Amino acid sequence: MSEKAFQDYYPDNYSHCYGCGRLNQDGMQLKSYWDGEETVCRYTPRSYHSGGFPGNIYGGLIASLMDCHSAASATAARMREDNYTADDRRPVPRFVTASLRVDYLKPTPMGGVLEIRGRIKEIKTRKIIVNTALFAAGELRAKGEAVMVQLTESNAGQ
Amino acid sequence: MSEKAFQDYYPDNYSHCYGCGRLNQDGMQLKSYWDGEETVCRYTPRSYHSGGFPGNIYGGLIASLMDCHSAASATAARMREDNYTADDRRPVPRFVTASLRVDYLKPTPMGGVLEIRGRIKEIKTRKIIVNTALFAAGELRAKGEAVMVQLTESNAGQ
Repeated sequence: MSEKAFQDYYPDNYSHCYGCGRLNQDGMQLKSYWDGEETVCRYTPRSYHSGGFPGNIYGGLIASLMDCHSAASATAARMREDNYTADDRRPVPRFVTASLRVDYLKPTPMGGVLEIRGRIKEIKTRKIIVNTALFAAGELRAKGEAVMVQLTESNAGQ
Repeated sequence: MSEKAFQDYYPDNYSHCYGCGRLNQDGMQLKSYWDGEETVCRYTPRSYHSGGFPGNIYGGLIASLMDCHSAASATAARMREDNYTADDRRPVPRFVTASLRVDYLKPTPMGGVLEIRGRIKEIKTRKIIVNTALFAAGELRAKGEAVMVQLTESNAGQ
């Protein structure tokens, strides 16, 4: 895909996340994109990402994917809301997770691509709520809701 | 520690979890123990487990630690409740996560041991709710609540 991913806008010093940092060579380097009014991220788990029961993904990976994709979706939503242009010189808005809830609806099988889709539920001044849904083999497997809080100069260490 | 960890009771075919499976050579191999009425698990993140902001842990790892530790705590709570003995021949009760909520209270720094403590909030016939708290450098960093559901023959593929 030639389109630039949300995570590719992050400044270098915010690009070391194990989940989605483009500068973390050992990480998963997740990439998120707009797909109409939804956001989408696709990831193929490695064979060692198995859960307690062989053949299924471990739950922590699902939470990780939802967390990083929600953070990226919040950034993208804020940029869209604030009419950022491709060569905008304003800082890229960055978010941290205040809370994450994951509902595991059914087992998520290994061996294929996972698709995580996001919807922006609510945009406030500093807070954005993102709903996510994780699909595998064409079926909904888990749902998530993340409350993301925008970093400001006063909480940049968050 | 010579005491047997909760995860060491899991049968082989449930011991491949990336988070806590003793047979997953690429995984984190978490170990959980009783500490009075609480359960405890300690883990030292690897250098690549950084979050978006360098020096802090990525949120997905925290969710993963809480998820696996909650599952193990549920198993241990059920075994204690049902008076399992060291050489008990009944099957080891196993749990899957129905839902997980994580509240990220403050940044979790890299470079030290993380301690995850669990408390059994509620035990029902098939459902156990576990509250967790994650500490780093002596401070509470995140709180979790997991609803764990016991596997039965009819849902063993879960």
